[in-house]
Amino acid sequence: MAVMGLLGGGVIGAAWAARAVLHGMDAVICDTDPEAERKTAEVMDNARRAWSRLTLAPLPAPGTWRVVPTIEEAADGADFIQESLPEREDLKIALLARAEAAARPGVVIASSTSGLLPSRLQSRMRHPERFVVGHPFNPVYLMPLVEICGGDRTSDATRQAAAAFYTGLGMRPLLVRREIDGFIADRLMEALWREALWLVHEDVATAEEIDDAVRFGPGLRWAFMGTFLTYRIAGGEAGMRHFMAQFGPSLKWPWTKLMDVPELDDTLLEKIVAQSDAQAAGRGIREWERLRDDCLVGVMQSLKAPDFAAGAVLAAHERTLAAAQPAAHDDASWRGRVEPGWIDYNGHMTESRYLQVFSHATDGLLARIGADAGYVAAGHSYFTAETHLVHRAELGVGQALHTTTQIIAADDKRIRLFHSIVRDSDAAVAATAEQMLLHVDLATKRVGAALPAVLDRLRPLAAADAAKPRPTAAGRAIR
Amino acid sequence: MAVMGLLGGGVIGAAWAARAVLHGMDAVICDTDPEAERKTAEVMDNARRAWSRLTLAPLPAPGTWRVVPTIEEAADGADFIQESLPEREDLKIALLARAEAAARPGVVIASSTSGLLPSRLQSRMRHPERFVVGHPFNPVYLMPLVEICGGDRTSDATRQAAAAFYTGLGMRPLLVRREIDGFIADRLMEALWREALWLVHEDVATAEEIDDAVRFGPGLRWAFMGTFLTYRIAGGEAGMRHFMAQFGPSLKWPWTKLMDVPELDDTLLEKIVAQSDAQAAGRGIREWERLRDDCLVGVMQSLKAPDFAAGAVLAAHERTLAAAQPAAHDDASWRGRVEPGWIDYNGHMTESRYLQVFSHATDGLLARIGADAGYVAAGHSYFTAETHLVHRAELGVGQALHTTTQIIAADDKRIRLFHSIVRDSDAAVAATAEQMLLHVDLATKRVGAALPAVLDRLRPLAAADAAKPRPTAAGRAIR
Repeated sequence: MAVMGLLGGGVIGAAWAARAVLHGMDAVICDTDPEAERKTAEVMDNARRAWSRLTLAPLPAPGTWRVVPTIEEAADGADFIQESLPEREDLKIALLARAEAAARPGVVIASSTSGLLPSRLQSRMRHPERFVVGHPFNPVYLMPLVEICGGDRTSDATRQAAAAFYTGLGMRPLLVRREIDGFIADRLMEALWREALWLVHEDVATAEEIDDAVRFGPGLRWAFMGTFLTYRIAGGEAGMRHFMAQFGPSLKWPWTKLMDVPELDDTLLEKIVAQSDAQAAGRGIREWERLRDDCLVGVMQSLKAPDFAAGAVLAAHERTLAAAQPAAHDDASWRGRVEPGWIDYNGHMTESRYLQVFSHATDGLLARIGADAGYVAAGHSYFTAETHLVHRAELGVGQALHTTTQIIAADDKRIRLFHSIVRDSDAAVAATAEQMLLHVDLATKRVGAALPAVLDRLRPLAAADAAKPRPTAAGRAIR
Repeated sequence: MAVMGLLGGGVIGAAWAARAVLHGMDAVICDTDPEAERKTAEVMDNARRAWSRLTLAPLPAPGTWRVVPTIEEAADGADFIQESLPEREDLKIALLARAEAAARPGVVIASSTSGLLPSRLQSRMRHPERFVVGHPFNPVYLMPLVEICGGDRTSDATRQAAAAFYTGLGMRPLLVRREIDGFIADRLMEALWREALWLVHEDVATAEEIDDAVRFGPGLRWAFMGTFLTYRIAGGEAGMRHFMAQFGPSLKWPWTKLMDVPELDDTLLEKIVAQSDAQAAGRGIREWERLRDDCLVGVMQSLKAPDFAAGAVLAAHERTLAAAQPAAHDDASWRGRVEPGWIDYNGHMTESRYLQVFSHATDGLLARIGADAGYVAAGHSYFTAETHLVHRAELGVGQALHTTTQIIAADDKRIRLFHSIVRDSDAAVAATAEQMLLHVDLATKRVGAALPAVLDRLRPLAAADAAKPRPTAAGRAIR
């Protein structure tokens, strides 16, 4: 499978081409837009950038791409043909017939249409059995879903060949079992979109508020579970039947601007319960809850890097929590306990969690001297340059512990710290960490003096600690 | 703000309590279910587990919680009251009146109702100005969104106090500007849900297929952008007006099972375009496309760890790609990428994750010499005694990296290692770690010789590495 023929470029066709090129195929794109080369190159850039971030898996050497002026040039020599022309049925029908005449026998011809019926699109083809809808989602180079919908005369072999082709591009084909306007995903999107337009129309909410209602709420769950599984889990231990009993009647409530709802009779209820049971595949509610939570945690964390949507909420909350960390009342620079997720295969706290605890202790000291979230936001921070960890006793799950922190040395640019993790139960020192922190200007990334306000708070602490005995392990090297 | 009073436990009330307890508040939950203690404890466990994975930020010392049998005991002494009773208007009205009589003056009383109108719920209160709807989403301990909707007599001070309280729990309040059944998010969810029920009813798709159509497709985008911004970006360089011109007419298509659509006249069109422009906040289409792609990449990668939904598709594709390529021949002891959850407040990889990566490298070496899971199960293991980390360059989210590992010295009981973390992009060494491992008998916890089979594999590796130049940073101490 070496050449993908694209009937129509644009946002959809160029992104199909990008998926093919990234997977080692050559793409031939029919596009009469005088700016097609530039626009296609931009889509290719976006796709390459996205995939370089998406995966470490070895992609094949990229294929080539070129823009051609005629349908025939794109179809001739192609091993798979994808049509992404404007959504006009007459236009598509006419150009599909031209493509078929130029294409090799047996090559699958797929349409990206988001809603036109395949039986109509294939109606004038000589070999309609080779035609199928393969409906992708924007951006096509990243979104996994492709809806495969055949017409009356589409062969099963064509459906299967298209599914295999798209899978090879890293996509997730969904075989649509009945030909219907809008297939499945667009019908669901349309339903939500129309309600959204009503809400704007009646000034209930603005476009941004509606988007916020989605992305901080149900959209986070829809990213991995869809609607039935989400509701099943909401039903708790009693499952889907309970959920439907509790929320089914609300179907009749006049919430959405609809005038027609399906009758939730026993037949429909039993069908939904049975399909939901099949989907749950024997996993219990606790297992589903934890899977849901793990996915939510991952999704929210992943949005923290671009500082967007739920990730921006999480980041802001973390800054608030860090700023609110109370100054230690005693010698402890941090207090906590060993979490279940911190245990390694030896049954005790894994080594990277020791450093996490020491980081909390460092953050505690930095907060005390005013090198806090506001200081970082203003472009200054302390970075850890070196850490020397020494392990002296094990820590098991649930054990309460605290840290102690001594400043061994400090100047305008550096702080040398010595932390200990102490088990609360027996006051045993489980580990120590000597750390060298450097003060960094975040704009230039260069080491430089801390601001006077911070140094004014650091110096008396350092002077007080200098009077204490120096830890014997300080300055030690591994021998 | 020290005590949250919960009127009603269950899935919603207990999860509110968990959010409060995790943020240092005490929770008093009125729940007459005889199993309330057990069920609440399970929700608390889920919440604690989820937050320990969600964030490294320092949460305050957790509060306490208890279940009480009466509304009065939950309301008396509370600083904020949240009602999460069954969705029966008469029941809520009656119990809210009882709660108000027991509550301190001025304390906000909020309802978790997903659709009942606040003007009706507050209708029999003596001080209706202190009542507001604060509608959360399941699981309440993780989902950011809370819709704040006041009734006719709710004061602005109450709305603002509720928003501040929820923000303190890490949530994202959305102020609903008009009182309406179902508020905003549930209306959108209902619209999608009704269409989904129709599709099941007419055997167009099963519950699982409908969920797949969401989670492999539009649901991925809804997780961070909602519907208007997604469509705006789909409009390409021409923006929202172009999108509406292209897709507006499809509002009239008979796709969804609706019988009423808003008239897309010039007034509505202009309103949507203006609101969309405001939302886009002056960022250009390329910037939005890249932000969208970064978010999609992050979301799909984050779902790879639980091997679920789009993450499972990506993982399977990566396995296929890897299988299609010959194994890389290099010195890497571990390969990976900086995960979104590894980023600290300075915007780069947090220090404990460096040690986690070095642990992977150590585990890789131990597996090579046969000190693997079976060896540990048989009662033998290597423990890390000391680690000396040196940081030399920053690592940002998504950066590909690998480790190299050199054995500096080894005898029967000890292995001294020197690891480096190398950025794939420029081969820069981001950090090094010197480690001393001790061989331990897990029964006695005493240091002793490794088994001969392990030593037989260790010795030739150590001999080969001894011929290499010794890293200059080895044996170094912090000065």
